[in-house]
Amino acid sequence: MSSTSLDDSTGLSRRQLLRMIGLTAGNAAMYQAMSSLGFAADSTYTGPINLQGAPKGATVLVLGAGIAGMVAAYELRAAGYQVQVLEYNSRPGGRNWTLRGGDKFTELGGYAQECQFDKDHYINPGPWRLPYHHRGILSYCKKLNVPLEPFVQINYNAYVHSRKGFGGKPQRYREVKADYQGQVAELLAKATKQNALDQQVSAEDRERLLESLRDWGALDKNFQYVAGQRSNERRGFERPPGGGLDARPEFSKPIGLSEILQSGIWQGIAFADEYDTQQSLMQPVGGMGKIGEAFGRALGELIRYNAKITQIKQSDHGVTVTYEDTTAAAPVKGVAAGPALTASADWCVCTIPLSILSQIDMNVGAPMAAAIGAVPYASAVKVGLQFKRRFWEEDDHIYGGISYTDLPIVNIGYPSYGFHDAGKGVLLGAYIWGMDAMEFTSMTPDARVKRAIDYGSQIHPQYRTEFDNGVAVAWHRVPFTLGCFGVWNEDSRGKHYENLCAIDGRIVLAGEHASYIPGWQEGAVTSSLDAIGRLHQRAVAKGAKS
Amino acid sequence: MSSTSLDDSTGLSRRQLLRMIGLTAGNAAMYQAMSSLGFAADSTYTGPINLQGAPKGATVLVLGAGIAGMVAAYELRAAGYQVQVLEYNSRPGGRNWTLRGGDKFTELGGYAQECQFDKDHYINPGPWRLPYHHRGILSYCKKLNVPLEPFVQINYNAYVHSRKGFGGKPQRYREVKADYQGQVAELLAKATKQNALDQQVSAEDRERLLESLRDWGALDKNFQYVAGQRSNERRGFERPPGGGLDARPEFSKPIGLSEILQSGIWQGIAFADEYDTQQSLMQPVGGMGKIGEAFGRALGELIRYNAKITQIKQSDHGVTVTYEDTTAAAPVKGVAAGPALTASADWCVCTIPLSILSQIDMNVGAPMAAAIGAVPYASAVKVGLQFKRRFWEEDDHIYGGISYTDLPIVNIGYPSYGFHDAGKGVLLGAYIWGMDAMEFTSMTPDARVKRAIDYGSQIHPQYRTEFDNGVAVAWHRVPFTLGCFGVWNEDSRGKHYENLCAIDGRIVLAGEHASYIPGWQEGAVTSSLDAIGRLHQRAVAKGAKS
Repeated sequence: MSSTSLDDSTGLSRRQLLRMIGLTAGNAAMYQAMSSLGFAADSTYTGPINLQGAPKGATVLVLGAGIAGMVAAYELRAAGYQVQVLEYNSRPGGRNWTLRGGDKFTELGGYAQECQFDKDHYINPGPWRLPYHHRGILSYCKKLNVPLEPFVQINYNAYVHSRKGFGGKPQRYREVKADYQGQVAELLAKATKQNALDQQVSAEDRERLLESLRDWGALDKNFQYVAGQRSNERRGFERPPGGGLDARPEFSKPIGLSEILQSGIWQGIAFADEYDTQQSLMQPVGGMGKIGEAFGRALGELIRYNAKITQIKQSDHGVTVTYEDTTAAAPVKGVAAGPALTASADWCVCTIPLSILSQIDMNVGAPMAAAIGAVPYASAVKVGLQFKRRFWEEDDHIYGGISYTDLPIVNIGYPSYGFHDAGKGVLLGAYIWGMDAMEFTSMTPDARVKRAIDYGSQIHPQYRTEFDNGVAVAWHRVPFTLGCFGVWNEDSRGKHYENLCAIDGRIVLAGEHASYIPGWQEGAVTSSLDAIGRLHQRAVAKGAKS
Repeated sequence: MSSTSLDDSTGLSRRQLLRMIGLTAGNAAMYQAMSSLGFAADSTYTGPINLQGAPKGATVLVLGAGIAGMVAAYELRAAGYQVQVLEYNSRPGGRNWTLRGGDKFTELGGYAQECQFDKDHYINPGPWRLPYHHRGILSYCKKLNVPLEPFVQINYNAYVHSRKGFGGKPQRYREVKADYQGQVAELLAKATKQNALDQQVSAEDRERLLESLRDWGALDKNFQYVAGQRSNERRGFERPPGGGLDARPEFSKPIGLSEILQSGIWQGIAFADEYDTQQSLMQPVGGMGKIGEAFGRALGELIRYNAKITQIKQSDHGVTVTYEDTTAAAPVKGVAAGPALTASADWCVCTIPLSILSQIDMNVGAPMAAAIGAVPYASAVKVGLQFKRRFWEEDDHIYGGISYTDLPIVNIGYPSYGFHDAGKGVLLGAYIWGMDAMEFTSMTPDARVKRAIDYGSQIHPQYRTEFDNGVAVAWHRVPFTLGCFGVWNEDSRGKHYENLCAIDGRIVLAGEHASYIPGWQEGAVTSSLDAIGRLHQRAVAKGAKS
């Protein structure tokens, strides 16, 4: 473990942070921990916003051209407001971001990467999938004509891998899931037949439960999960059936429940049942960044890029923002990049991540100021790896989906597009969380890529010979966000959440950090719609100019 | 129920047929029945076939330009044989078939349909998905540059529907699956804690089992599946979390296990675990027929279309096939369509479905002849429905996947392509099996469509107002196959399968009917490769001309 720690900067103990980001065990525990923080979630989006009666000539300054900021600008413009957006980056989208061949990215400390992927390949350093129930972000995909395609989340032929089991050999998800489910069903059938559940299950339901367990667990007629046709039609065959002569199948043997339990490998099997990773999920054709790019085109001249906010001041009459044009001069350490510029408006929708905003001079009241300082940002690292061929399809017969491991890389994500393409291919080689992410963050980009290759080759030995190039984004070193997403817990929610969201004078905050869906674009969308709805009400109440 | 029955023609009692096709209950029972017939299966495909040393000048006649026939022709030509293919239809593919707007199809009895779908919409009357483990057919997709895309099989937001439960109201798969799994896990946790399983589970595994059940079943800290954060992160929320103020989620209540059991609705929930319908699955972009069309282009002039085989005669020296050109004269009842034509070759690969082949004059030995007559063909009906808008996406938030019902329509399949398209949309409105299929088969195409609308509107009331047009294919009335696929049972396999596959003189049979993967294209591919491998050996042994 690296000794690098963000504990100091957030005021959290290492143990608190560990608990918050749920690192102590594998994915399932992590997910549970994330869930208890309100990470796994749905959306309150119910339909298009309808803002009527914008005061004539009213102006709004939107800070940040990420999803929250651009939703705000898009809807406020439609409602009749005069809108200007200031954005730090030279592109729209914020964390909605796709790295493609030729794209350059410089992180804190000056490490510059240029993505070397072949044409049509990409990685999404930020969000990479759209759950079916994230209706807000999906509605903007539709409105902005962003073509979507299926994102394959669950692939029974992908691997689950645990260092603790099977001699470190990855197992097919299909086998582990079938064998766990089958043996759980067999155990419950036994208990039911032994009348151990007579208190819980009525005599009437008893036979139905047994019947359902047989079907659901792929049990044989004696309610046993054993090598045979039924189990093999879930877990696969030793020698599969075929055509012509000598084509009769031979049966494979299930893995014992004890081995599954002791390996800890069961931790990955329910991931596809979780609400946010249930199918169907979708992705924009060509990368998640297509959404931000479409918003950027729709907003056009409204967005001023390369604008680094340095101060946000409000009065009873309006808001004035001071910013630098980062392209105006070569950045020199300790010297502002360009002359101070200002922009003013009646109202301000600020979507700057709290990790950045907490460092900006801003005159809001104590409650909002305290809230801005109270939310630490999660650590995450994504690594994209290009290989000389799509060996996962050719050799492993994996088309899309995700392999899970208890190695620090957590995920290997296979592309849901370009199946069978003859050229090179790009994997998500790592999606790292918590302390492991902090360790990776402390490395150079090259070292992160190398480490992802080292770990991944335990699952795909082809990594060693087929690796072509890679790119690694450590969110705590991304200048425009300094972290992946805002991490709430019950305590901070109780103390600060409403103060964060409440309008302070002429300023309202929006973004995933101001939602119960942190870390998801849907949080940004619903937060933004809620914020501008309330701001609009206040603007209407105040009238055109006040 | 219609009184129409194929029992007489197959020599099977109605009860036998029912049992064979597994009609007595819902999908799960059907699937189990199909499975016991060797329906659900994998593939023995291990890599490209390598036929070396074809006798100089040796000729092969391939009967049928379906997948089996075209694989044979493609590989035998590559091996140096002179190949000719005779095909009944005016297109390649056979049951690999996509109906698009403007396509015409005339079934037995003369009922003609012209598909009225809008551009880019289609239905596959035959196979519609490619499992990841069907490596043979996938390898030809790659070889022939047929682009593939994900086929969304499992969608947690699709419906499961039972006439017996919930007042006939469709339920979300998500809720039923989460609640069944959660309550099964809770019951087993109870039994484990009551020491009812001490014989089966060691003390060492006991705690691990409990921990795994909590994770897998989304149980709370007391091992209970109750309304709350954990269960709702599987089954969904009463009021989902959102952004901004007033965005805290409200929890939904699970459905009781008893209600799930009594409704029979549990029968659909393990379908996505079955080997043939496990993800990832794929489909050719633009319809399954793209594979047949690509083969057709690759074979070009080798295929003679519109050739109706009437006789197959072999001698010690070769095979002569008599056929009619069905385009030569307008068909008049009782009169041959055109003059008898013949084609001859040293060898013959016959891929004609047994339902047709059993009616053709052919001099093979008694064992093969008996085998040809011993395999009845399954009944199936598919109905494609075009609607004025994609209401399943707009209203129901269903993107791809399948809803299951115990109504005769069985499936409603949602397109995995064209998400959010503004125009019309096409559903698979029914995929009907067994006796229900026979009843539908006895109707006119229009009546089938109307009936599918009647049933489907119980799940999607929008059917009533949004229906545009439809097309219905009843496989027992499809002239080129007279049934969907060959149905084997243990008895017929034992008596006839090897005789069907063994080379008879100069003739070898191939197709899904000559495989352990009936009803799947992979059966056709592996059967064909096995057949031509053996035929090649015999040809090499016999020499160029004998």
